[in-house]
Amino acid sequence: MFVLVNLKAYPCDPVEVAEAAHEVAEESGVRVAVAPQAADLRAVAETGVETWAQHVDPLAHGSHTGSTLAERVADAGADGTLLNHSERRLKLAEIDGSLSAAERVGLDTVVCANNPEQVAAAAALGPDAVAVEPPELIGTGTPVSKADPDVVTDAVEAAAAVDDSVDVYCGAGISTGDDVESAAELGATGVLLASGVAKADDPKAALEDLVEPL
Amino acid sequence: MFVLVNLKAYPCDPVEVAEAAHEVAEESGVRVAVAPQAADLRAVAETGVETWAQHVDPLAHGSHTGSTLAERVADAGADGTLLNHSERRLKLAEIDGSLSAAERVGLDTVVCANNPEQVAAAAALGPDAVAVEPPELIGTGTPVSKADPDVVTDAVEAAAAVDDSVDVYCGAGISTGDDVESAAELGATGVLLASGVAKADDPKAALEDLVEPL
Amino acid sequence: MFVLVNLKAYPCDPVEVAEAAHEVAEESGVRVAVAPQAADLRAVAETGVETWAQHVDPLAHGSHTGSTLAERVADAGADGTLLNHSERRLKLAEIDGSLSAAERVGLDTVVCANNPEQVAAAAALGPDAVAVEPPELIGTGTPVSKADPDVVTDAVEAAAAVDDSVDVYCGAGISTGDDVESAAELGATGVLLASGVAKADDPKAALEDLVEPL
Amino acid sequence: MFVLVNLKAYPCDPVEVAEAAHEVAEESGVRVAVAPQAADLRAVAETGVETWAQHVDPLAHGSHTGSTLAERVADAGADGTLLNHSERRLKLAEIDGSLSAAERVGLDTVVCANNPEQVAAAAALGPDAVAVEPPELIGTGTPVSKADPDVVTDAVEAAAAVDDSVDVYCGAGISTGDDVESAAELGATGVLLASGVAKADDPKAALEDLVEPL
Repeated sequence: MFVLVNLKAYPCDPVEVAEAAHEVAEESGVRVAVAPQAADLRAVAETGVETWAQHVDPLAHGSHTGSTLAERVADAGADGTLLNHSERRLKLAEIDGSLSAAERVGLDTVVCANNPEQVAAAAALGPDAVAVEPPELIGTGTPVSKADPDVVTDAVEAAAAVDDSVDVYCGAGISTGDDVESAAELGATGVLLASGVAKADDPKAALEDLVEPL
Repeated sequence: MFVLVNLKAYPCDPVEVAEAAHEVAEESGVRVAVAPQAADLRAVAETGVETWAQHVDPLAHGSHTGSTLAERVADAGADGTLLNHSERRLKLAEIDGSLSAAERVGLDTVVCANNPEQVAAAAALGPDAVAVEPPELIGTGTPVSKADPDVVTDAVEAAAAVDDSVDVYCGAGISTGDDVESAAELGATGVLLASGVAKADDPKAALEDLVEPL
Repeated sequence: MFVLVNLKAYPCDPVEVAEAAHEVAEESGVRVAVAPQAADLRAVAETGVETWAQHVDPLAHGSHTGSTLAERVADAGADGTLLNHSERRLKLAEIDGSLSAAERVGLDTVVCANNPEQVAAAAALGPDAVAVEPPELIGTGTPVSKADPDVVTDAVEAAAAVDDSVDVYCGAGISTGDDVESAAELGATGVLLASGVAKADDPKAALEDLVEPL
Repeated sequence: MFVLVNLKAYPCDPVEVAEAAHEVAEESGVRVAVAPQAADLRAVAETGVETWAQHVDPLAHGSHTGSTLAERVADAGADGTLLNHSERRLKLAEIDGSLSAAERVGLDTVVCANNPEQVAAAAALGPDAVAVEPPELIGTGTPVSKADPDVVTDAVEAAAAVDDSVDVYCGAGISTGDDVESAAELGATGVLLASGVAKADDPKAALEDLVEPL
């Protein structure tokens, strides 16, 4: 099970969460990564935690101002990147281009999607993983794995029908170890979460609870 | 074979092209449609030709200014809609939403894509057809069916692997009956074209040449 | 006073509202215009009412699929166009380009903006008018001219400081003749409204009430 | 005179350019800043050079994935930010929002624009400076201050008419000390440049040439 903590633009200290995540990963043996803002990638990577970008642009070196270039993200220490998060939707051709950019520099990739049809579409583009996150559950604290288990099993099936080497993660509303466990039972091999850790008073305790059943 | 003529924002008379297309369709028995600007849908539909929108938004009735609502497009007489043309790229979730909007009002749909991977992704969303149009060939007069035949056969295979009820059309550089014939031989069941007809001195003659081998 | 009725993507009959607006304009002598979806421009213009587009793109004739070209909007009978509505925000350079496109074909222009600073910015681009519409009041039924009169007088001052030939209209929450009157007292020379007429059971009665104090 | 070096997504070593810029600033007394990708802000700031972001989003803390938050950019050491560069155009309301975000954390701001009208519009939003960069000259090596001197003097006048506390910089094609000098003579108080330094074999020598006449 892979636990990916998206720090979004939350007012947390990214290094503090990264250190907590690193310790929990070391202590539990569970793979845990942290995805900060681009400006914090270097500081987060220096903690030793697995580090993800929240986005990279479908671009190569060149005249592109205000972009997020895969090469610089990788140089700052990132190991992977989210793409097409519901808060950063991309055009179909851009997802394809960003996947190429990520692959060029060896970043792992997770493409987010709303529903099983979009999961299948995303899987057809060849990412390492897709994540199903029904938008109506994001930020609710109601885990998709409980509120709508069919959407997870349908996503697992839809991705496998297109390309069975693509992992399926599950996001939206995940905040406890129990949620992670039910996601695993439905066939997800990872979870995306955000506020449950990034806004916790004690991020380390929140992460320990999350990985406890694993 | 389906021949879809995209008028883009060309300085042609949309009604004149529509009348020519209608006559050629009647005389040849080939299915020919014309896709004008939204403001011209009603006038084009009144010629009796099969009429397509160039785009509809992923929206339902509501507070949306400056949008193209599927309901109004259908009311104006449209039979179908292009989506995700390389000159009007959509986010993955928007393609999904626009397909739902089109289906709600009974519009046929063609989702455009750059390459076989994107064709597979588009097919996973359940349109009536996908169209493969390598961007580097659009507007060149060099037909994809000759310049890069593999991209057409790969697109046909990629779509069939995901959903074999989805037709595959072929765009970019198509302008003669010969181009249409080679597209059909590669497995395409339709062609998208634009300047070859819309900018022709004699659109009817251009269309007659196109459908001649069919 | 200019009364501009934006039909957005509401489920009204655009021709019915257009006919009502035309009659009220004839009977009252007040300038009243209707802004339907692009696909309905021709049918609305045929009623004889002053007809506005909800948007035109910053483009000239050419290879632009799914766009709204000023030339086709004007050909369909439009007299003017809204630009940068809060539901169709444009880039600064696009507003500039859409104003050029509108001017090229003789369309009147109103550029919408959130606040007096943006009103001044819009006025600097040389439209016929700007409209101040605080986003938090759009669709509320609480008229900006009453809820926040300072925003209207500040917008009038801000526009005049940049270019005193630019009219200032007032939108957001306008639905009664009383609202229109207070807008006029604050220096606005026009009002934008939408649901108050488009969603009324009797659009003609709603319009008669609106123009009654004028 | 302020010299702002935009590293865009060029394949340079941002720290090497930053160190060169810092030395030239120290040696010449000229204000020189470097604008790297967000992921490189921290490393660039650590060289001691004045550091600028290439963009910040019109957002506050919250659920925003893949964004560039002013707070994190400032925390990484940025002193200012470009906005609305021709390679990263923003909506009018977004420029307003990004200026608020930058002001909230004390970042200096330069809003880019194509022509004197857009310069006036940008000045109305209250940035520290505007930059006029005719898109047709960007990356050409033909300096706007020589190819089209009127556009610079018109921009200076247009900004002053709206708000005379807003500085006017000049970009597009600037690469030599001579270009900088002619920009200053036309009333610009700063220059934006990119490839002339970022792609130079010897960035320090390129910068020394640039500041030589100052």
